[in-house]
Amino acid sequence: MITSTGNDKIKNIIKCVKQSKERKKQGVFVVEGVRMFSEIPREFLSETFITEAFYEKYKKLFDDVTYEIVSDNVMEKITDTQTPQGVVSIVKRLEYSLDEVCMGINGDKDRVSAGGKMKSGTAGEEKSDENYPLVMALENIQDPGNLGTILRTAEGAGVSGVIMSSDTVDIYNPKVVRATMGSIFRVPFCYVDNLKEIVEELGSRGFTSYGGHLQGTCFYDFDYRESTIFCVGNEGNGLTDELSNVLDHKILIPMMGNVESLNVATASTVLMFEALRQRRNRF
Amino acid sequence: MITSTGNDKIKNIIKCVKQSKERKKQGVFVVEGVRMFSEIPREFLSETFITEAFYEKYKKLFDDVTYEIVSDNVMEKITDTQTPQGVVSIVKRLEYSLDEVCMGINGDKDRVSAGGKMKSGTAGEEKSDENYPLVMALENIQDPGNLGTILRTAEGAGVSGVIMSSDTVDIYNPKVVRATMGSIFRVPFCYVDNLKEIVEELGSRGFTSYGGHLQGTCFYDFDYRESTIFCVGNEGNGLTDELSNVLDHKILIPMMGNVESLNVATASTVLMFEALRQRRNRF
Repeated sequence: MITSTGNDKIKNIIKCVKQSKERKKQGVFVVEGVRMFSEIPREFLSETFITEAFYEKYKKLFDDVTYEIVSDNVMEKITDTQTPQGVVSIVKRLEYSLDEVCMGINGDKDRVSAGGKMKSGTAGEEKSDENYPLVMALENIQDPGNLGTILRTAEGAGVSGVIMSSDTVDIYNPKVVRATMGSIFRVPFCYVDNLKEIVEELGSRGFTSYGGHLQGTCFYDFDYRESTIFCVGNEGNGLTDELSNVLDHKILIPMMGNVESLNVATASTVLMFEALRQRRNRF
Repeated sequence: MITSTGNDKIKNIIKCVKQSKERKKQGVFVVEGVRMFSEIPREFLSETFITEAFYEKYKKLFDDVTYEIVSDNVMEKITDTQTPQGVVSIVKRLEYSLDEVCMGINGDKDRVSAGGKMKSGTAGEEKSDENYPLVMALENIQDPGNLGTILRTAEGAGVSGVIMSSDTVDIYNPKVVRATMGSIFRVPFCYVDNLKEIVEELGSRGFTSYGGHLQGTCFYDFDYRESTIFCVGNEGNGLTDELSNVLDHKILIPMMGNVESLNVATASTVLMFEALRQRRNRF
């Protein structure tokens, strides 16, 4: 049992929990809690630290997994939560190409022609409409809870993948990872340096792009059954003009009362589930 | 200028920020930040504390408001946030009867016949469909962010009012108040001791009730244009069997991928905006 925070492995995981830069350098992220642990694809699992009590309770989860037992005191130091459940893992990053994120379009023809399946089983694997992908493009989302919730909801709504501008919050931030409730392992995502250019490029590949705008058209009036990109922007400022200007359609979610705007995760939910509603008879 | 936390008014507001019981006893709640301050109905404003810097910046907000200037040090002690904006108010509670929350049905005939207006201007005042109210019933919601977001989204979706079981988190918790982004002043709400009985009672008054259930019917297959109650349950456990058993319809939000469930605020969003979509041509 590791009882000292001076242990090299412990020093390393503390750095990974706290520092985005360190996680990036090592190509890993940190995953906490029993539910999330059970969803980690085993080939991505690098190291796992558990308390003795946790091992006693969940022995059968560890039949085929190497782990280190740590003292309760050490567990408290390596956790990002206030009430640690007793399991923290270091997990290798999942890397997706843009084509994988926008699955079903051009890209790796072999993979697509082989039934549209992707290497690492994803939400879209069997159920999403591979010929008409639905992509979320997030510009400068800053709140970890919002990003995590969008990923979780995206999986539920059958979104093919999520593209993020490089100034969006780190998806491997422990708060984001937790809020995804496991969807981070199943929804393809990538960061891009120039979101506007990517949206334009996808346009040339048959996608229609939509983004929120105060002068937009009611979003219920569009058909989202073909290849669709929904762009949503920063919590305080919305989409940049730069990105808005290249969209095919500026849309507006109709609102009652004196509400100025919806939370960005809420607005994303409304858009994604309207697409699901329109597409549902295909599944 | 108040510079001491020993001042009686300061001691009192600190108690109100920290203690649900004290807020309840005094019939007040605490509101922070410039945006929320500007949305407080003036007749409900009891006391306001601001820093000198805040006063200099927002002088014109205080033409018709009494206030106390406090030192930065005192402001830090009376705020619930990490970066206080410099304004904290004590506000009298808004009290609504069940009939006001479920506006438009029986209840105070005079008020309803007088154009359906309510005493204290609400989200539903002019725009929501008064003949066919849309009510959210929340059972044992525990996360302050979820409750606040539901209230904000409810206003945007034209919900008539929100009924909460008595074990739902305190709506006057500063985190809930902040997350409502001002909707707490405009959406009628009430706590009830027996939510099941209230749902049954509303049923006898013409409402149709719906609630999430794993064995439910796809929720897109229903018509929500008449008087509707959506019931959503606790984050971990969903609706109690007791409440589920009295619902007119058990519904299911269709989901893709391996998502077990949506966050409760996300699920509420999907339901409320589907109702808005169906009702929108009336407005």
